[in-house]
Amino acid sequence: MPTFHRLVGKICPVRFSKQFSTTSSILAPYTPRRSLMYVPGNDDRKVAKIPKLGADCVCLDCEDGVALNMKESARHNIRNILDTKRVEFGNSECSVRVNSVDSGMCEQDLEIVLGGENLPSAVHLPKVGGKEELEFVWNMVDKVVGKEREQIGLIMFIETARSLIDIDSICKSAWSLAQSPNSPLFPVALVFGSDDFAADIGATRTKENVELLLARQVVVTAAKAHRLQAIDCVYIDYKDHEGLKRQSEEGNRWGFTGKQVIHPGQVNIVQAAFTPNSERVKWATELLQEFQEQQLDGKGAFTFRGHMIDMPTVKQAQNVVDIVRKQS
Amino acid sequence: MPTFHRLVGKICPVRFSKQFSTTSSILAPYTPRRSLMYVPGNDDRKVAKIPKLGADCVCLDCEDGVALNMKESARHNIRNILDTKRVEFGNSECSVRVNSVDSGMCEQDLEIVLGGENLPSAVHLPKVGGKEELEFVWNMVDKVVGKEREQIGLIMFIETARSLIDIDSICKSAWSLAQSPNSPLFPVALVFGSDDFAADIGATRTKENVELLLARQVVVTAAKAHRLQAIDCVYIDYKDHEGLKRQSEEGNRWGFTGKQVIHPGQVNIVQAAFTPNSERVKWATELLQEFQEQQLDGKGAFTFRGHMIDMPTVKQAQNVVDIVRKQS
Amino acid sequence: MPTFHRLVGKICPVRFSKQFSTTSSILAPYTPRRSLMYVPGNDDRKVAKIPKLGADCVCLDCEDGVALNMKESARHNIRNILDTKRVEFGNSECSVRVNSVDSGMCEQDLEIVLGGENLPSAVHLPKVGGKEELEFVWNMVDKVVGKEREQIGLIMFIETARSLIDIDSICKSAWSLAQSPNSPLFPVALVFGSDDFAADIGATRTKENVELLLARQVVVTAAKAHRLQAIDCVYIDYKDHEGLKRQSEEGNRWGFTGKQVIHPGQVNIVQAAFTPNSERVKWATELLQEFQEQQLDGKGAFTFRGHMIDMPTVKQAQNVVDIVRKQS
Repeated sequence: MPTFHRLVGKICPVRFSKQFSTTSSILAPYTPRRSLMYVPGNDDRKVAKIPKLGADCVCLDCEDGVALNMKESARHNIRNILDTKRVEFGNSECSVRVNSVDSGMCEQDLEIVLGGENLPSAVHLPKVGGKEELEFVWNMVDKVVGKEREQIGLIMFIETARSLIDIDSICKSAWSLAQSPNSPLFPVALVFGSDDFAADIGATRTKENVELLLARQVVVTAAKAHRLQAIDCVYIDYKDHEGLKRQSEEGNRWGFTGKQVIHPGQVNIVQAAFTPNSERVKWATELLQEFQEQQLDGKGAFTFRGHMIDMPTVKQAQNVVDIVRKQS
Repeated sequence: MPTFHRLVGKICPVRFSKQFSTTSSILAPYTPRRSLMYVPGNDDRKVAKIPKLGADCVCLDCEDGVALNMKESARHNIRNILDTKRVEFGNSECSVRVNSVDSGMCEQDLEIVLGGENLPSAVHLPKVGGKEELEFVWNMVDKVVGKEREQIGLIMFIETARSLIDIDSICKSAWSLAQSPNSPLFPVALVFGSDDFAADIGATRTKENVELLLARQVVVTAAKAHRLQAIDCVYIDYKDHEGLKRQSEEGNRWGFTGKQVIHPGQVNIVQAAFTPNSERVKWATELLQEFQEQQLDGKGAFTFRGHMIDMPTVKQAQNVVDIVRKQS
Repeated sequence: MPTFHRLVGKICPVRFSKQFSTTSSILAPYTPRRSLMYVPGNDDRKVAKIPKLGADCVCLDCEDGVALNMKESARHNIRNILDTKRVEFGNSECSVRVNSVDSGMCEQDLEIVLGGENLPSAVHLPKVGGKEELEFVWNMVDKVVGKEREQIGLIMFIETARSLIDIDSICKSAWSLAQSPNSPLFPVALVFGSDDFAADIGATRTKENVELLLARQVVVTAAKAHRLQAIDCVYIDYKDHEGLKRQSEEGNRWGFTGKQVIHPGQVNIVQAAFTPNSERVKWATELLQEFQEQQLDGKGAFTFRGHMIDMPTVKQAQNVVDIVRKQS
């Protein structure tokens, strides 16, 4: 009964999708990135706070958070953190942001940061410009990391007008490079670099964020079309917790899977906003259970809690359960 | 005086456009689709209500409204409705929604639904994925329907992140296929499949609908660039008539030409929202009359009711008159 | 120290960008276009008011503001204005809007308007359709104007659904044509033709302008990706100064660099909205000064007025200073 398998395939697009079936990384466990917290790679005072951050993803930064004359120090400090495992990351992912290819510093960053025994689980690439830059990064990582290593996730930053326009071809290029045998990288997320983007188009950021509506929704759409996570803009005013909560919940409703965080006080609010509440999880779990029983009985449509259930609803429920299972 | 003809051509883009001059279907009378009401093809209780619905477009559904184990029954029941003409459609268009190509059920749907003497005036194709899928459908319909038959309108559903990104090339492919000699299909509308789309990008729908702003405006823009109707999202809460009215009027203001309807109680509200009011019709009719007299007198610009009239205003008036003439 | 130069290059993308280094026009002084005011080319009463308008850009119009039977008169009157210099433009730019290529009138407009000794500093091309139209215009201007003349700025109007979808390729085509040796034109701005666009997609304009959100933000993004000015929609209700102010300030926040104006009473409000206030200029100037000192000292990141300054902030400050320097 091919129809059944097709439907299951559609409910679980990532796990069963033909598109990605040759990419071993798809079989890797899901890494939630509800909050993405930047820590300057050279700032040992801030590095020391990592164990207590509670962020899904901690990003040791070589880029905007690090002064030009501290780049070298940041690289080596990050390498040392990876080598010695002296920092306890706990449930947080250990990832590294290098400088953009067009800064001229990316090559050195990669050489030093990825040159040791222990690799970060993901690399953040800011200001992605296009296919050539991605090929450059792939080749560099290939050269530095060598074969027979675990793959590193690639998190790509969309933060210029040009890259927003080219976002679909950027994602296509990344997936295409990831299909090569022994690819050292595979794309996992798009980050919307809100402040660089605003500067590039000459916009002034407001709390309502209307000026970034197009860009944010384009990033979500492209990310989901390419089965990538979508990580939302920074909320600059780190003292305004109400505003942060509002914007985080909005991002979650729009389809973002996480949000960038610039202050430890923002982490819990953001993590909570991207976690389905217990009521929604209960609804989703029970709906899927009912759906599977109905399918096994050979029945198709069914009512659940008084509503006729159609496939979009089943897929929404599956999304909720996926997130919880992978984030717990 | 070539200028005059050029201007008239611009005011009436569909009727005189070179782009479509080889497509005989352009000469067919305009079919309004202010409301598009779904009726499960296998549900005779709901089918019996069709004569009283009052919807411009009635869609006999084989897809999301029909359980997996009822697909066969839906197909044959729809064929029977077409064959026997036992249901009185009145002023409503009789159309059919098949399952998507990637469901594996589309082929059988088309074979049975289009295999008889009487054809529906339009076929709805959900989850359109791209050129290959359209070619598949064109070939299937060609095979099933045969030559020398009236053309069937094709209504394409944009309801995934991927298809939103590819919307322009999807429309181009459809028009390109429609240019082939004896094409059995011609594209007439885009439908924004809001709930499938929201599920695909992981968005949570709200009544304000901000999360779907980009998608809805992209669908309108692409539809109009390709001279297709644009049919707006479903309003889920069928008991909230005020909210439905508000969203319908918003859709109308944005350029949508109609809206999907999931409950008979929604039809009148939606139809009304997509009908220009009498004041606006009077304004448009008189303005166009004045415009034509001025043009025949060799005059160009003119004032009307105290305003200087420019070409965008003339075109807006023409839009209003077109809609009313075709919908009355 | 290549890093320093790269950073400086990024702060001043236009002046140092490789992309445009072969275009001599980039070295021309910046021409602000905070307000773009239309004056019908045949209306001597309105032409007489030009010296007192105070608009950055005055557009002598052959298109929508001129009746069909007055086109010839408008062309020759504009030519006369250019030839005799009888009108005092003061600080206002003297530019001309021709009719669109597909009107069939563009050729004659260019022949007459550009056929004299004195050229306008910019030509406005409405309803740009694509590469072929741009090539047509380039060839025409080349033929009419001849070699060894100063380049004329090209201001392109995006005002159809089709051109909004094709906006990136339209800009690419224009820059590509401008790269040819002795190109008579170089692109300087995109204008969003709001009312033609609304008519094309069948939208009804409201003061809130939500129906045009996608289009406006696409125009800003494409303009900035191609280093062009972005000129916002018309505010129709010329008596509503509060509404005009609100919409102008919104456009400025979104990244637009100017706005179209249809009444002399709108000019001052619009000019003010697109001028950074003195507080912001002070902030930007001091920040950049501090940044340069820090860079020369070999330091990278720094705090300014209690905030850690990153590159996006430096670029925003540079934008403000650029605008003021060029507009004063």
